[in-house]
Amino acid sequence: MNILYKIYNDLRLSIPNLIQIGALLTVTIIAVKISTALINKFFENKSRLKIIGEEKRLNTIKSIMVSIVKYTIYFIGLTPILGIFEINIGSLIAAAGVGGLAIGFGAQSLIKDIITGFFILLENQFQVGDHVVVDNLSGIVEEMTLRVTILRDFNGDMHIIPNGTINRLTNKCRGSMRAWIEVGVAYEENIDHVIDRLNHLFDTIENENIIGKAQTLGVTNFGSSEVTIGIIARCKPLNQWHVERFLRKEIKNMFDKEGIEIPYEKRVIIKEK
Amino acid sequence: MNILYKIYNDLRLSIPNLIQIGALLTVTIIAVKISTALINKFFENKSRLKIIGEEKRLNTIKSIMVSIVKYTIYFIGLTPILGIFEINIGSLIAAAGVGGLAIGFGAQSLIKDIITGFFILLENQFQVGDHVVVDNLSGIVEEMTLRVTILRDFNGDMHIIPNGTINRLTNKCRGSMRAWIEVGVAYEENIDHVIDRLNHLFDTIENENIIGKAQTLGVTNFGSSEVTIGIIARCKPLNQWHVERFLRKEIKNMFDKEGIEIPYEKRVIIKEK
Amino acid sequence: MNILYKIYNDLRLSIPNLIQIGALLTVTIIAVKISTALINKFFENKSRLKIIGEEKRLNTIKSIMVSIVKYTIYFIGLTPILGIFEINIGSLIAAAGVGGLAIGFGAQSLIKDIITGFFILLENQFQVGDHVVVDNLSGIVEEMTLRVTILRDFNGDMHIIPNGTINRLTNKCRGSMRAWIEVGVAYEENIDHVIDRLNHLFDTIENENIIGKAQTLGVTNFGSSEVTIGIIARCKPLNQWHVERFLRKEIKNMFDKEGIEIPYEKRVIIKEK
Amino acid sequence: MNILYKIYNDLRLSIPNLIQIGALLTVTIIAVKISTALINKFFENKSRLKIIGEEKRLNTIKSIMVSIVKYTIYFIGLTPILGIFEINIGSLIAAAGVGGLAIGFGAQSLIKDIITGFFILLENQFQVGDHVVVDNLSGIVEEMTLRVTILRDFNGDMHIIPNGTINRLTNKCRGSMRAWIEVGVAYEENIDHVIDRLNHLFDTIENENIIGKAQTLGVTNFGSSEVTIGIIARCKPLNQWHVERFLRKEIKNMFDKEGIEIPYEKRVIIKEK
Amino acid sequence: MNILYKIYNDLRLSIPNLIQIGALLTVTIIAVKISTALINKFFENKSRLKIIGEEKRLNTIKSIMVSIVKYTIYFIGLTPILGIFEINIGSLIAAAGVGGLAIGFGAQSLIKDIITGFFILLENQFQVGDHVVVDNLSGIVEEMTLRVTILRDFNGDMHIIPNGTINRLTNKCRGSMRAWIEVGVAYEENIDHVIDRLNHLFDTIENENIIGKAQTLGVTNFGSSEVTIGIIARCKPLNQWHVERFLRKEIKNMFDKEGIEIPYEKRVIIKEK
Amino acid sequence: MNILYKIYNDLRLSIPNLIQIGALLTVTIIAVKISTALINKFFENKSRLKIIGEEKRLNTIKSIMVSIVKYTIYFIGLTPILGIFEINIGSLIAAAGVGGLAIGFGAQSLIKDIITGFFILLENQFQVGDHVVVDNLSGIVEEMTLRVTILRDFNGDMHIIPNGTINRLTNKCRGSMRAWIEVGVAYEENIDHVIDRLNHLFDTIENENIIGKAQTLGVTNFGSSEVTIGIIARCKPLNQWHVERFLRKEIKNMFDKEGIEIPYEKRVIIKEK
Amino acid sequence: MNILYKIYNDLRLSIPNLIQIGALLTVTIIAVKISTALINKFFENKSRLKIIGEEKRLNTIKSIMVSIVKYTIYFIGLTPILGIFEINIGSLIAAAGVGGLAIGFGAQSLIKDIITGFFILLENQFQVGDHVVVDNLSGIVEEMTLRVTILRDFNGDMHIIPNGTINRLTNKCRGSMRAWIEVGVAYEENIDHVIDRLNHLFDTIENENIIGKAQTLGVTNFGSSEVTIGIIARCKPLNQWHVERFLRKEIKNMFDKEGIEIPYEKRVIIKEK
Repeated sequence: MNILYKIYNDLRLSIPNLIQIGALLTVTIIAVKISTALINKFFENKSRLKIIGEEKRLNTIKSIMVSIVKYTIYFIGLTPILGIFEINIGSLIAAAGVGGLAIGFGAQSLIKDIITGFFILLENQFQVGDHVVVDNLSGIVEEMTLRVTILRDFNGDMHIIPNGTINRLTNKCRGSMRAWIEVGVAYEENIDHVIDRLNHLFDTIENENIIGKAQTLGVTNFGSSEVTIGIIARCKPLNQWHVERFLRKEIKNMFDKEGIEIPYEKRVIIKEK
Repeated sequence: MNILYKIYNDLRLSIPNLIQIGALLTVTIIAVKISTALINKFFENKSRLKIIGEEKRLNTIKSIMVSIVKYTIYFIGLTPILGIFEINIGSLIAAAGVGGLAIGFGAQSLIKDIITGFFILLENQFQVGDHVVVDNLSGIVEEMTLRVTILRDFNGDMHIIPNGTINRLTNKCRGSMRAWIEVGVAYEENIDHVIDRLNHLFDTIENENIIGKAQTLGVTNFGSSEVTIGIIARCKPLNQWHVERFLRKEIKNMFDKEGIEIPYEKRVIIKEK
Repeated sequence: MNILYKIYNDLRLSIPNLIQIGALLTVTIIAVKISTALINKFFENKSRLKIIGEEKRLNTIKSIMVSIVKYTIYFIGLTPILGIFEINIGSLIAAAGVGGLAIGFGAQSLIKDIITGFFILLENQFQVGDHVVVDNLSGIVEEMTLRVTILRDFNGDMHIIPNGTINRLTNKCRGSMRAWIEVGVAYEENIDHVIDRLNHLFDTIENENIIGKAQTLGVTNFGSSEVTIGIIARCKPLNQWHVERFLRKEIKNMFDKEGIEIPYEKRVIIKEK
Repeated sequence: MNILYKIYNDLRLSIPNLIQIGALLTVTIIAVKISTALINKFFENKSRLKIIGEEKRLNTIKSIMVSIVKYTIYFIGLTPILGIFEINIGSLIAAAGVGGLAIGFGAQSLIKDIITGFFILLENQFQVGDHVVVDNLSGIVEEMTLRVTILRDFNGDMHIIPNGTINRLTNKCRGSMRAWIEVGVAYEENIDHVIDRLNHLFDTIENENIIGKAQTLGVTNFGSSEVTIGIIARCKPLNQWHVERFLRKEIKNMFDKEGIEIPYEKRVIIKEK
Repeated sequence: MNILYKIYNDLRLSIPNLIQIGALLTVTIIAVKISTALINKFFENKSRLKIIGEEKRLNTIKSIMVSIVKYTIYFIGLTPILGIFEINIGSLIAAAGVGGLAIGFGAQSLIKDIITGFFILLENQFQVGDHVVVDNLSGIVEEMTLRVTILRDFNGDMHIIPNGTINRLTNKCRGSMRAWIEVGVAYEENIDHVIDRLNHLFDTIENENIIGKAQTLGVTNFGSSEVTIGIIARCKPLNQWHVERFLRKEIKNMFDKEGIEIPYEKRVIIKEK
Repeated sequence: MNILYKIYNDLRLSIPNLIQIGALLTVTIIAVKISTALINKFFENKSRLKIIGEEKRLNTIKSIMVSIVKYTIYFIGLTPILGIFEINIGSLIAAAGVGGLAIGFGAQSLIKDIITGFFILLENQFQVGDHVVVDNLSGIVEEMTLRVTILRDFNGDMHIIPNGTINRLTNKCRGSMRAWIEVGVAYEENIDHVIDRLNHLFDTIENENIIGKAQTLGVTNFGSSEVTIGIIARCKPLNQWHVERFLRKEIKNMFDKEGIEIPYEKRVIIKEK
Repeated sequence: MNILYKIYNDLRLSIPNLIQIGALLTVTIIAVKISTALINKFFENKSRLKIIGEEKRLNTIKSIMVSIVKYTIYFIGLTPILGIFEINIGSLIAAAGVGGLAIGFGAQSLIKDIITGFFILLENQFQVGDHVVVDNLSGIVEEMTLRVTILRDFNGDMHIIPNGTINRLTNKCRGSMRAWIEVGVAYEENIDHVIDRLNHLFDTIENENIIGKAQTLGVTNFGSSEVTIGIIARCKPLNQWHVERFLRKEIKNMFDKEGIEIPYEKRVIIKEK
């Protein structure tokens, strides 16, 4: 058919069409307003029950939901308008064909980023300020968007990680962390005596980052030149390295005082005649 | 066709339609009620037969089944209503086209999470409190949902693992665990004597975490400076490391007493003229 | 069309329909009964010919076959009933569209589990109690279902392995296993003498787990400080480690008696003026 | 149908068609002009608010947007012209069939490059001159296009990286970097004294690249022959290696002056009788 | 339509249908017989020309071909029967829809196993009894079916390898194998003298598994304490390790006799004042 | 329909058809000629502006563009001829069905090779004679085609790399390269003195391949027996190894002259009583 | 429809059909003959211009082309015959449906093998007798077919490599190969003297496999106990290892004569009081 003629005809016949379009627009906009208001109300009630720190997260979830509902209503409400002008959506899509498929595949990872990002928010997997590990990258969460998570590594690096590539995530700021030290003592030492001195040390030292007291676990290995003693302490998140360094210095000083040897590697030499 | 006119007509003709919708809704809701009641009844009988610890798991499976049946009935029952208003579902889906395909691919891992999560629950692969290993992550199961499993590692890390990425799973809390120690003795020692003293030690020591007695297996390796003796003990889950440390200390003390040498590395030195 | 009216009409006209449904149900159920009976008969004959240990495996295969035949007949027989009520299956599936595709992809690994599981059963790749290795996991098969295989590792771990992830499988309980020992002797020793003493030892020792006699293979390597002698013995499955430990102790004792040296690492030292 | 005859007829009938085409072209071109002008206006306002360094990035985004809008309008506006000549686009695409699918898959990575490139620009993940790491390649960003990013490695290599292969990106020029030094001191040294001397050194030295002062963290490891002391300093991006070398030299000189030993590897030798 | 009524009608009208079915069956069965006979004849002629060892392989290929031809003829011949009863195959498949797609993906690896297995047979890549390597698994081929290949490893393991996972295959039983020995002599030795003594040795020793004579290649490496001499010998498949052990013992004995030194690791020691 | 009859009819009716075909051919060929000429003209202008070394690259791009335009015109122009003979292209493709899909997947990597190859040319990623690295393969580019790139490794290997497998590419011939040397000096040396002597050396030596002067960076590591000094020099591509060897010899000679020690590994030996 | 009746009718009406079939067959066969002859003629001319060694390759390409053209003509020519018997190809394919898709995926790697194999032949990537490396497998090409390449490794292994798995290929028989030796001399030696003696040696020795002369590159590394000197020589393919062994022996002999030391590892020992 002749499109120009059609446009002319459409214009001529469009007086009732204009009413249609107006009505469709009115209904759609009202529907959007109502549903937005309902979502806001729902979250107002809910958020009163939550602690303040999570308000930002709730606002993010709320605005995502408003967006999804809004665009879905617009899409459903306004598609018929295209039908009024007899534009065949299907044929446009068919013409886009091969290219469209390629874009679909290309955009796939974008969609995956957003879906994963939504779940990270909804399940509160981490918050800005948490120390997290994603595969071999770690750092403090500096920013969290629907598409990417930005980590600040301890050496200053800024890691930009698309959420869709976050498969398994380790959050190192939920609950107490463990400081873990292994110290070797000579085979000649009496193990019970060493453990006794260590436990005595841990009873006397004080460190605000240690939760409870450090503990001597016992003999964790028979090394080639030393017996390895394992020591743990529970401590506040992000302070585990500090506590480990603190304990190492205290143990070294105590060993020096008590005369307990941290042995160098030993070799037995047999001279052949 | 003119949609507004259609809506007008639909409204004019909708008195019988309203009855249809009402009837459809009524039938659907009744069907949901009945099937929910039937599922509840089925699980009531079944759960009487099970031990108490598994009640929570059964409740989860029950509520999942209720959800699936409920939404399937709603979907089958209410789709015809859309047909009454002559909304063409197919064309909406076709219009969503390319985007929909992309979402389909993106959401794929979500579906996989849920299916795998359902099987983990159904087959009771692990329970909250179990010590499990998933690839290179391990820890105590802290929470288990349909989408993710949350592990608490021994160093305090919280691992968040989507169920769909759990391919092979190792549960370290089903049955007794094995404590495994290898201790090297000098080539100069008499092996039979050493094994005899070890077995005598294991007969005398007592540890509530060891099931039965520890056992000396024999010579597991000819090392470069020592003969390696292997020792095992069955013990209660999560206590294997404790038992290993306990046995190492007891062996070290016994060796000291008996004069059995744990050798340092030995080198034979040949002086060239 | 007006669905309610249709339902009314269907009811009015359903007296012959009820007969149809009844007839369809009757025919279908009879077909199921007959085919179940035929499969049972087939396996009864067959199973008489098989050894008793495999009866459980045959029962599993039989019940799988009964299930497949039964549900196929039901599906073919009862689909026309939906047609009688003029429910358009196709359009429901089309409406499920995008979601269905996603589920299809998600459920894909479930189907793969079952197909692989069926072949493991049919080809009798392993039985409960066998020692098998799947990639880097090994253990005794504790349970085998269509979806997962459960291994009990020697250290007590329970590995839950979906059958679909079992690509290549190593069964270590089919036929005799090999115990393999390498023992180093000093370069100063006469190799022929050492081999002669070893063979003499193997002629005199007895161990119920060794099939035939252990054998000295010869010089398998020129090490940095020792000549390596290789020794093998065929033994019963799951006893190879026991035999290896037994042989090592016997060889050590014989070497002590014969004065054959297992050398420490040797270094030639050149003093620079 | 006879195409030549059709062409003849089209020509004969094309006088109104020519008008159609002209009208379509006119409308399309006007639409392009207007939308281009609107985008330009939008960015003019916005860019006034931004700092000067980002102007180039904004221009790139603007020109991408103009391109997308322009070609979309052309596509929608001019497709009907093909319809006027009764060329069946669909059948051409269908005929291209198999080949087209292959091209679609092949071009997929091209589309992915462009989508990822667009996000890198939009989110300002890095700028020309930044030091970035992509997997195992690193360098200074030399050029950034929609399809590839070109890095100049410190050894002169030019890395050409398609944007679609950039999954996770580390930007080492956002904020201060960390210089990290580990220095070993003999077990015989007094740790508190060493730390005190180091801190005194860091108070006195000056280096324009260090932000604040370098800090001694404490004992980071018990080595086989030395106690390891960790030292950090925040410094300006790209100067961390310079600062590390500067600090190492200062520490070496201070240790020489103070007589603090950086120990060689130590061995304890036991002579066997 | 009313299916029961149709069945009734079909039965009433089925007298000619029965003739149709009979005729179809007759024609199909005759076609199968003829084609089976033709394939058998083809292989009878061919197999006369082949050596006896390959008869089993030919029989396997023949029976596969008979199966393929037979089921293809049945499928083509009997599909029309379904058409006679007006069963709509297409709609059944459509109804199976989503599930069918999933099965298709799941069964994919089964098909791949069979296709690869067919090529292994056709190209005679290996025979039962050959020593083959597939990726990191090796062993003697114990059984070869269309779906899996079963290897018996030298330590007794039974590897079950689906053919579809065999990408690259190494057959170690086609032609002579190479025994490869590297022996280190002191830097102080005269290389030409050593090579001369080795070649003299190889001229005098005899071993039925060596094809021709062993050969001294020359200096393959300057080691830290020794000059490495490479020696090769061609030998019969599966005897390479035996030959290597035999040669090592002969070389050791010859070196002892000739006074050629296989050096221990040497260190030059510089005493610091 | 009866095809032979159709052919007869086509022949009878083909007098006007022949004219059609002739006209189509004529129009198509003219269109090809014109567009080829236009492309040639476009590149003639452009190439005048470019340096001579890139002429070959421009010719390649030109001939690719001519090919693409030519075959596209032929395809669009000649497809209607098939229509004239009423050959149904679609059904042929449909019949090719399954096989075609398989070919499509198989040819996919071919298409990817060509697309990537085109971008390598267009973006001038490397030229014949450049030293490039693709993953773990490196060498001088010897030939570059649309499908493969051929590298000549320094050891003479010819690497044949399909372009589609080139993901990330490193070009080592764009700009100056870095020679990098690390030399260890004894802890006893005065670092400032060593750096001073090195810088003095670099001021005096001359080498045409070094751009500017070599530079001493400072202390790059505290080694176990030596302090490591880092030295860099910018140099012409492909001469970096030459410059490194040259600098090492000069430094060794200078150190010999100045009496600066490159230390052997040092061990502190403690004799146990 | 009633197929038997149709067959009867077809037979009754098949007299003109037989003529059709005959005519189609005749035309098709003639077309095949002509095109085969044309291809043969084309290659006859071409092959006269090529060297003899490549004749076999050309024959392979020719016979592949003949096959492709022949089967394409048969397919196009004979498909209409099926149409004459009113067999609906499409429905057969549709019925094969799910299975066909699975086969398509399964056969995919077969197609990929053939396409890659064709390019290896066409681009003459290697010939029988060449030494090639494919990933981690290497050897002399023993046989090359469209589906697989068979390599004979130097240790006698026969590698069977499907062409589709050959991504990147290294041909080690195109042009001269490089022999590469690194020899360490004591830090006490004068480097210029050593290089001078080496170059003098290379001027005097003769070896038919060396192209030109071996060359001393200079100091390639500062080792822990020695200065490493690099030496290269260009040599004929497959002789590089021979040349390396030859040069090592000559250098060793020359060093012995000249008194240049190849040093053992050196340690500086510091005795602690």
